[in-house]
Amino acid sequence: MTDVVDTLVRGTLVNVHTGNLEDGAVAIDDGEVVALAERPAEHEIETGYVTPGLIDAHMHVESSMVTLPEYGRAVLPRGVTSVVHDPHEIANVLGEAGVRALVEDAANTPLKARFTAPSSVPASSLQDAGAAIDAEAVASLLDLAPVVALGEVMNVPGLIAGDDEVHAKIAAARERGLTVDGHMPGVEGAALHEAARYLDTDHESITLAEARARADLGIRVYLREGSSSKNLADLLPLVDAVDTRRLSLCTDDREVVDIVDHGGVDFAVRKAIDEGADPVDVVQMATLNTAETYDLPFGRIEPGAPADLVLLDDLESWTVAGVMVDGNLDPTAPERTERTNLPTDTVQFDPVSGGDLAIEAPADAGATARVRVIDAVGGLQTDPMTADAPVDAGALVPPVEEDICSLAVIERHGRDGGIGRGFVHGLGLHRGAIGSTVAHDAHNCVVAGADPDAMARVANHLREVGGGIAAFDPASGKLVSLPLPVAGLMSAKPIETVYEGYEDVEALATDLGLVEGGLMELSFLALEVIPTYRLTNRGLVDVEAGEHVDVVRP
Amino acid sequence: MTDVVDTLVRGTLVNVHTGNLEDGAVAIDDGEVVALAERPAEHEIETGYVTPGLIDAHMHVESSMVTLPEYGRAVLPRGVTSVVHDPHEIANVLGEAGVRALVEDAANTPLKARFTAPSSVPASSLQDAGAAIDAEAVASLLDLAPVVALGEVMNVPGLIAGDDEVHAKIAAARERGLTVDGHMPGVEGAALHEAARYLDTDHESITLAEARARADLGIRVYLREGSSSKNLADLLPLVDAVDTRRLSLCTDDREVVDIVDHGGVDFAVRKAIDEGADPVDVVQMATLNTAETYDLPFGRIEPGAPADLVLLDDLESWTVAGVMVDGNLDPTAPERTERTNLPTDTVQFDPVSGGDLAIEAPADAGATARVRVIDAVGGLQTDPMTADAPVDAGALVPPVEEDICSLAVIERHGRDGGIGRGFVHGLGLHRGAIGSTVAHDAHNCVVAGADPDAMARVANHLREVGGGIAAFDPASGKLVSLPLPVAGLMSAKPIETVYEGYEDVEALATDLGLVEGGLMELSFLALEVIPTYRLTNRGLVDVEAGEHVDVVRP
Repeated sequence: MTDVVDTLVRGTLVNVHTGNLEDGAVAIDDGEVVALAERPAEHEIETGYVTPGLIDAHMHVESSMVTLPEYGRAVLPRGVTSVVHDPHEIANVLGEAGVRALVEDAANTPLKARFTAPSSVPASSLQDAGAAIDAEAVASLLDLAPVVALGEVMNVPGLIAGDDEVHAKIAAARERGLTVDGHMPGVEGAALHEAARYLDTDHESITLAEARARADLGIRVYLREGSSSKNLADLLPLVDAVDTRRLSLCTDDREVVDIVDHGGVDFAVRKAIDEGADPVDVVQMATLNTAETYDLPFGRIEPGAPADLVLLDDLESWTVAGVMVDGNLDPTAPERTERTNLPTDTVQFDPVSGGDLAIEAPADAGATARVRVIDAVGGLQTDPMTADAPVDAGALVPPVEEDICSLAVIERHGRDGGIGRGFVHGLGLHRGAIGSTVAHDAHNCVVAGADPDAMARVANHLREVGGGIAAFDPASGKLVSLPLPVAGLMSAKPIETVYEGYEDVEALATDLGLVEGGLMELSFLALEVIPTYRLTNRGLVDVEAGEHVDVVRP
Repeated sequence: MTDVVDTLVRGTLVNVHTGNLEDGAVAIDDGEVVALAERPAEHEIETGYVTPGLIDAHMHVESSMVTLPEYGRAVLPRGVTSVVHDPHEIANVLGEAGVRALVEDAANTPLKARFTAPSSVPASSLQDAGAAIDAEAVASLLDLAPVVALGEVMNVPGLIAGDDEVHAKIAAARERGLTVDGHMPGVEGAALHEAARYLDTDHESITLAEARARADLGIRVYLREGSSSKNLADLLPLVDAVDTRRLSLCTDDREVVDIVDHGGVDFAVRKAIDEGADPVDVVQMATLNTAETYDLPFGRIEPGAPADLVLLDDLESWTVAGVMVDGNLDPTAPERTERTNLPTDTVQFDPVSGGDLAIEAPADAGATARVRVIDAVGGLQTDPMTADAPVDAGALVPPVEEDICSLAVIERHGRDGGIGRGFVHGLGLHRGAIGSTVAHDAHNCVVAGADPDAMARVANHLREVGGGIAAFDPASGKLVSLPLPVAGLMSAKPIETVYEGYEDVEALATDLGLVEGGLMELSFLALEVIPTYRLTNRGLVDVEAGEHVDVVRP
């Protein structure tokens, strides 16, 4: 036993083991909690409350468009000391190598990033992604020390049908004693019971009934508060209906602006408390519960655990006075470390023209043609819709006055450069175009616009800068972009720079009429595994039917 | 998905994940729960309540004097489908080979026995055990599939002082991601905080304050209800003071008579409910909580889990209607399997005479000599005591009228046959002798009696039958014994036979005056690591001083 410890923190401890608040002291030596009692110490700190560092149970750092070190710089001061990161997005661009690059990059931040091995890359065979991760690659990734689970299993139909590849990946995780994350949007009834045989967690509940059904089956339910999917308020009554021990908080996808302005999973903690949940329950859902799911050694304050602590002036308002990781106070303070080589130069397609992006009218069309339209109804949801598109010079023109614009998805991984074309309702765009190489999950280049020339301008610009998001206003000739050269998904620049770049693009897009949250919506319009209509580089997909359909209705 | 499942069980499910009672159905196919819903089934069962099979969080099967298959035959019909068994006793006799023999024998019962690798063999260097298990042997045992933890770490002073061997054993468990069981009787203050850095569980709390102090430090507290150590009622208020998720029920040591008459950990479940605890909390403490501690796949009813179920007519009275293991109803019904070769012939010492067991009077003694006496105050506890022993023909005679009798411990593992001699108060023996080769932890041959010749008769008989317990009444010439030829600790005979044998010995011992529970007390009088005085084959031990002391006071 040490005679004089490094640090003693006095305050009201949030004891996540017992569920109690207790006035006390945490004695810290050599980065570890060594006692929950008074000890002679070199440094003494008085604070209001002490909680374990928060853990985000499920997130994709790529959605914040910054690297893990920059993400950490933003959320560590807010009390988030760990994230369980599913590098699903970079995996779709660069495969196993991309995952390994992010795992290595995690060494550059005091944020304790743990990883899941992406299970569902590519998302389907209806689109061309940059890479695939087969069962062998999954097994190899599961052997990396920071990898704690198999990432969200999306192919639930395949799982239920006994798909060999899906089951081989799950078996690889089980053999290693690792958790298997699920992804079960809308799954119910017999399919849900069957999926529950194999999947341990789910973060896709939208309704309380869905969440309750999962909890009843022993599935660990994650209450998600992302930028688009804000499910926390709807799901929070679950804490009064079930033992909270198997509930966790997660963000899944949060934009850079939300991260900087409102935080990561700490925002979910504050919101849950605001909504009336018991603060200790809430802290458990963002610490111990998640730590137990993934067998993490932190997420609790006890002798023997790393000293990952949040010091709070006030618990209910989550007013952070200081954060400690491995006994280091305010661990983001040190100078920025040298960056590892993150992969760039991943946007590969030939320049396109407006004509390349326009939809050819059927030979027998009159003044208009009846077309299938993706109705972007908000969040990540779409509905199927039908509209009449005017015919002009042999091409279908988007009826912009009905809030329908053109949409194109360009294969950008250096294959055939194939282009899918379609229409989308509800984005609000009335002129110009917006585009992104962040286009879940295949991350092809998606562009939406009121005219094909503007769309081509945006696409070609993104090609030149190695990927990113951009908006172009033909009225002013102004083109604004946020380059995301890391896999076409992220910037290695400081998060403040990315924040400004994102706001600049968003501001111009808003000028063009884009609805709030429209950039995030755009990035999900190509995700061919979420109902109902989506557009891939190989054309429009009817997700429920699991097949491509023509834009022009027969 | 299967069209028609094997079995459907309808009833009120005790959902240990949500903490709720829910009317429902459990669909079982191929030994596994495949849905918590109605399914077409070949067999349908209607019952009152359905809980997961109970798990005993910590027990030593040797204390019941039967093998695991016989133990299983007794407790399975009561709803106990799993035990976490620390083969600490056989390890002290036979080392790693003894542990492996019990692990292999577990294949002969549907009871799901999991094991801990004994960490503390021998208990100390103050006595000669049959074997030692060093860090290398521990590591080898930890690699066996059914071994789920490092067994109770008893050398807390060594742990705190940084003893290399203790820490090497703990490190071996940590490297494998396994739990480390603690054993911290009376440990408090700074020592408890320090021990909490390394130990995950403790089953030695006797007072509520002790239990609370452990829970506050993140130690998983086991509420024990053994034959001697009955701590449940005292500790049960803890369920109202802390989150119950990290509390478990265990038996530690239960005699064969208690097992047959009252059950194993199911008795603790009934008693906790009787004492007013919430039945669902109680079931969680005997299922999921323990499963989480040791990362066991059962102890819950969910799709994907093995169908280990208890069917109850009534929950509160724990009225069992049926038990299922891996989907098999009443799994103890099949014929007894062929026994594996369990090790016998382990009691090795030369025949002794009464003179060998008597204590020589000091040369300067008068009519009496002042002697140190072990005061057996009940349970496993002893107090130090002083008395005057009459001198007769150069030997010290026990003042039987003061309820003090002679005690001897004979080394029986084939080493030097060394004999420790002393006195014990409180056993009630007024004539004859009793003896046992079950003598924690070294399991030498312990005999207590009113005269040395009767003691020698008992010891020599135990030597002849390969170990066991015995009583001898010189008034009638009657000698009754229960042979325990398996390592001198257990019988391979049916549990009913062992029960009768135990009762026969106890009946004669009671005739000799032995107090209730005296046989169990006898078997702990040689345990030199529990305060205060104990007798080993090398003489009397002052446990707090950690050294041998003379019986005759200076």
